[in-house]
Amino acid sequence: MITLNVDLGDRSYPIHIGSGLFADPSLLAPHIRGTQAVIVTNETVGPLYAAQVEAAIGSLGKKVSTVTLPDGESFKHWETLNRIFDALLRQGADRKTTLVALGGGVVGDMTGFAAACYMRGVPFIQIPTTLLSQVDSSVGGKTGINHPLGKNMIGAFHQPQAVIADIDTLKTLPPRELAAGMAEVIKHGAIADADYFAWIEENIGALNACDPELMALAVKRSCEIKANVVAQDEREQGLRATLNFGHTFGHAIEAGMGYGEWLHGEAVGCGMVMAASLSERLGFIDVETRARLAALVRAAQLPVVAPDLGEARYIELMKVDKKAEAGSIKFILLRKLGEAFVTTVPDADLHATLQRAVIHPPAEPDVA
Amino acid sequence: MITLNVDLGDRSYPIHIGSGLFADPSLLAPHIRGTQAVIVTNETVGPLYAAQVEAAIGSLGKKVSTVTLPDGESFKHWETLNRIFDALLRQGADRKTTLVALGGGVVGDMTGFAAACYMRGVPFIQIPTTLLSQVDSSVGGKTGINHPLGKNMIGAFHQPQAVIADIDTLKTLPPRELAAGMAEVIKHGAIADADYFAWIEENIGALNACDPELMALAVKRSCEIKANVVAQDEREQGLRATLNFGHTFGHAIEAGMGYGEWLHGEAVGCGMVMAASLSERLGFIDVETRARLAALVRAAQLPVVAPDLGEARYIELMKVDKKAEAGSIKFILLRKLGEAFVTTVPDADLHATLQRAVIHPPAEPDVA
Repeated sequence: MITLNVDLGDRSYPIHIGSGLFADPSLLAPHIRGTQAVIVTNETVGPLYAAQVEAAIGSLGKKVSTVTLPDGESFKHWETLNRIFDALLRQGADRKTTLVALGGGVVGDMTGFAAACYMRGVPFIQIPTTLLSQVDSSVGGKTGINHPLGKNMIGAFHQPQAVIADIDTLKTLPPRELAAGMAEVIKHGAIADADYFAWIEENIGALNACDPELMALAVKRSCEIKANVVAQDEREQGLRATLNFGHTFGHAIEAGMGYGEWLHGEAVGCGMVMAASLSERLGFIDVETRARLAALVRAAQLPVVAPDLGEARYIELMKVDKKAEAGSIKFILLRKLGEAFVTTVPDADLHATLQRAVIHPPAEPDVA
Repeated sequence: MITLNVDLGDRSYPIHIGSGLFADPSLLAPHIRGTQAVIVTNETVGPLYAAQVEAAIGSLGKKVSTVTLPDGESFKHWETLNRIFDALLRQGADRKTTLVALGGGVVGDMTGFAAACYMRGVPFIQIPTTLLSQVDSSVGGKTGINHPLGKNMIGAFHQPQAVIADIDTLKTLPPRELAAGMAEVIKHGAIADADYFAWIEENIGALNACDPELMALAVKRSCEIKANVVAQDEREQGLRATLNFGHTFGHAIEAGMGYGEWLHGEAVGCGMVMAASLSERLGFIDVETRARLAALVRAAQLPVVAPDLGEARYIELMKVDKKAEAGSIKFILLRKLGEAFVTTVPDADLHATLQRAVIHPPAEPDVA
């Protein structure tokens, strides 16, 4: 087991990464200080793992129960969140009750938001069971739900007590979900560590096959990068926004196609190719860098051609992005491989990028 | 104008108290840093004041719009909150948009919670227009909505940028609402300042008549007491819980009767009499102190006889109070006039208190 620390003063917490961890009572014990815990999971993950987590918490002498939500991004809204509140109140959950998020990013975001709001804040533990949530969404305290008019529009910053990333849970992950997680892994290399990016390129075959040793290394390095960024900028005043590389376009794809149609990671993968294309068009990166990124996204079995929502719809959707200010859309671009920055862009370049993105990206420079 | 400061480090903010303040652009200007503001009000307060606040914000060169909610505690739930989110998204509100809560406690709590959650947090200003919200709910950053199973169960701590308490707005307040606010004024004297309590006793007639000078003094002293408690214990780890004097019983009355049937302040007034009765029964205060409190609550035109919900229902409702831990109910009792503390109580004393509370409280000691 590797343990990293997210350094946030009195809100600091450990990330445990390894095998055989998710139902280890010794990892849960320090973080369940009241008399009960409530596990929140979904109907896919629950049948696989919830009984073991319940048993582990029960062995600590704590009262425990499980809430099972429907599975998928399309359920990440108020009505589902309210099922958590209903369960907490029916169980007599008090201010010291610990919530345990057992599942992927949707379960983690909703459980975290429920923990942020229930009685104005209770503790919670993240047990991410997908690659995407292990390398990205479980770390950093961003929680929330979607609104019909925008993704993650309603939420809170609420840090977990601990993150327990068990590589074993990735074995049962469908290939499409694994690929979606790889999008965030590639993102970490692209925005923060060119060597890591090269390592992913070299090992993409074994990573696609979910090689446990390589996957543990990827989870560790991605969590390090994320934890480092979050420690420097918890509330996204600056640096943290670079973690949204690919997300401005990606969120528009997800919302435009209807939540759940494209997986978040698929939209981010394609969104990164679009952002790299825009970076090239504006002269920040060369054609080789863009081509490397597109090739790696493709090698990770992720889409590189954007859905044709129409330019106007893309722009409308991107304007409700949380990074937008006074109606002007902010983009995360690459200055080089391993370094990203936040900027606005000229309308003409954005239009050209959107036009090109819906066509299979050619190898030549993206300056048409 | 008097200006107090709520001392919370980088979350500190001013409370301005006086006449002719609510539409003063110079008070609003420092707190609207983005390009737009959205006023949230209700259908009672909006027609009286919203146009003036809109004009004041407009005069600062900011885009401004107004969301009007239905009036009353019975609407303090998710569906109404979501009307604020809908409006913000339709207006293209970004992370720098300032929300302005123009109304009483319900508007303030919901607007504050919307500000806490919209894009994971935007700034907001409180312009409380009821006595209750001026002396209590607008100060301290508690925000939230009700759940059918419990009051204020879903919420956040989110401090405003400023509180603008304009005494002029109390002139249009119905007498019942004014009395409800007096409950919190009396509470502040009872838990923190015996001299203030005596001053309220002396001036209750003029306060009931909403004498502007006396009312300004009451708002000032109550805000001082509240600000002082909040500065010491923002997240209610200890001392702040004493501000809930009368609220354990009061919340049960509100929920048991159906939200909106009893005003919050009416339930708190009656709840304080019940808590004083329990304090006397347990030997902390003498019969004279209990009688003074009951007499002042009655003099403020507030109910002193509890509704007969049945003991079992009271206890069921009190167990979902946020202060409860592991099913045991916490009460705020008086040690003496001007000093309160948090405790659990023996079941027998609670039962006896509930039995006596539904009968007009007699003058003799409460130890039957």
